[in-house]
Amino acid sequence: MKAGVKVFAPASVANVACGFDILGFALNKPGDEIIARPTESRGLKISKITGDNGKLPYDVGKNTAGFAALKLLEHLDIAGQGIELEIHKKMPFGSGLGSSAASAAGAVVAVNEVLGRPLRREELLPFAVLGEEKADGAYHADNVAPSLLGGLILIRDTDTLDFYRIPTPKGLIATVIYPHIEILTKDARNVIKAEVTLEKHIEQSGNLAALILGMMQSDFDIIAKSLKDSIIEPQRSSLIPFFSEVQDAAMNAGALGCSISGAGPSIFALSMNSVIAEKVGKDMTSVLNKEAIHSDLYISPINSEGTIVY
Amino acid sequence: MKAGVKVFAPASVANVACGFDILGFALNKPGDEIIARPTESRGLKISKITGDNGKLPYDVGKNTAGFAALKLLEHLDIAGQGIELEIHKKMPFGSGLGSSAASAAGAVVAVNEVLGRPLRREELLPFAVLGEEKADGAYHADNVAPSLLGGLILIRDTDTLDFYRIPTPKGLIATVIYPHIEILTKDARNVIKAEVTLEKHIEQSGNLAALILGMMQSDFDIIAKSLKDSIIEPQRSSLIPFFSEVQDAAMNAGALGCSISGAGPSIFALSMNSVIAEKVGKDMTSVLNKEAIHSDLYISPINSEGTIVY
Repeated sequence: MKAGVKVFAPASVANVACGFDILGFALNKPGDEIIARPTESRGLKISKITGDNGKLPYDVGKNTAGFAALKLLEHLDIAGQGIELEIHKKMPFGSGLGSSAASAAGAVVAVNEVLGRPLRREELLPFAVLGEEKADGAYHADNVAPSLLGGLILIRDTDTLDFYRIPTPKGLIATVIYPHIEILTKDARNVIKAEVTLEKHIEQSGNLAALILGMMQSDFDIIAKSLKDSIIEPQRSSLIPFFSEVQDAAMNAGALGCSISGAGPSIFALSMNSVIAEKVGKDMTSVLNKEAIHSDLYISPINSEGTIVY
Repeated sequence: MKAGVKVFAPASVANVACGFDILGFALNKPGDEIIARPTESRGLKISKITGDNGKLPYDVGKNTAGFAALKLLEHLDIAGQGIELEIHKKMPFGSGLGSSAASAAGAVVAVNEVLGRPLRREELLPFAVLGEEKADGAYHADNVAPSLLGGLILIRDTDTLDFYRIPTPKGLIATVIYPHIEILTKDARNVIKAEVTLEKHIEQSGNLAALILGMMQSDFDIIAKSLKDSIIEPQRSSLIPFFSEVQDAAMNAGALGCSISGAGPSIFALSMNSVIAEKVGKDMTSVLNKEAIHSDLYISPINSEGTIVY
């Protein structure tokens, strides 16, 4: 057992326009820092939480990171193992950037490291997903998987957590803006209708298949044509003030596509190089500044490392 | 202007399980033979139709091949050009194998050749699609595009006919069985609900994205997991007697996946080599033989040539 481990688990952008609940990619920043260390006392404890304004519970069974770690320990049949966790939130909550997913991913990696790495990184996924489920009530892996593993991840089937890495083009850069507006993931889910028209399903399918092709062939033209959301964005964007103005600014600045990050309110764009990505970010920020909405801006390539141990 | 041109336009399998209205691939056989030759008289005429049991109209405006060719001539602004078409149907109607699409694809290629090839092959697609629309009342390109161009084709957007070729693994072989039962494409469309549950949309999306990945990476395991239809097959399969028995036989024989070809009643399977594809065909045929349903069997790699001029 190692003395103590610190990890950084990155934010992630889920859905990626046409991949609702099945696609997500990780960013280099922001992210959460999790520390795990062995203790003499029995069982898992959360010893410290910072950056949460007192909002997160210390109760292991109710805390995203704690619950994920607990499920991992139970799986290993060592739930009594003395381990303490420190959770340092370094990214906003309810932002649509996979904040709870990052905490869950970070916790399972940190605990696995402390234990001498009994499981491979991919094997940690189910426990992290259970942790995130605690936070937002839905079982989905499109934030947790990229946060844990890095890259652009396709969750083919959520029930079995059958996932694949989708290669992405060199040069692909994400610009993500987080407007300081609160949307709860549960609310963002509730606005979505339980049915989709067959017409929209076909439209979205065509774009999704083309997006995978474009990513794999490093073809920015195909990515630009297909990075669209015909189903969720029209339903959710009304929850985000000035969404269409921000989207227009991103597209006019040369983004390949722009849509809602996860459940929002963050908005992401993808661009074919860093110069365009910077301009996209500047112009998105200007729109919100004019409306006196504070925002945070993140510009990052597709993070290929996932959660980092250091 | 060439003296006369004969072409062979192949059958095709549309939908390909999880790609309703957006995916299709061509077979080597069966297919239609179309002959075009210049005439002294004014305008386009159909001079001969064989293999149709008298079912197809000689009226150019009502005939799939004739209408496609007419739309091409109109586009080239030479609708008065004297051309005669012979249509030799060498594949069944209403089979779900893209019979009308093959006639339409063959007609535009033959006429384009007679005219000295004013348009590139890809540029012929819109006219062939209009021809097929005459036959089945729906504007879709997932049969016409592969019949015309060969390969596995993704129609990203039907309105603009924005299409892409999806690479397929070497060794991938299609087994297609056509039970001698009549289903009209219009009827097969009518059984499909206008709405899809969000849950099924997500499930189908995950499989579609994985199918594209599996094809491009030549990964038969991924293809086997994802070659499924959660949306259309459950609604349409009741129109095809013994569908599930045939499907079970194909899967038990080692097929990667098995579903309805186009609107049915043909059933297709994909296998990772020709030995399995043959066994799949034998076992599918046995099921129908036991029920005294006559059938035709076709075994073919993914045809990469499309319509052939000879």
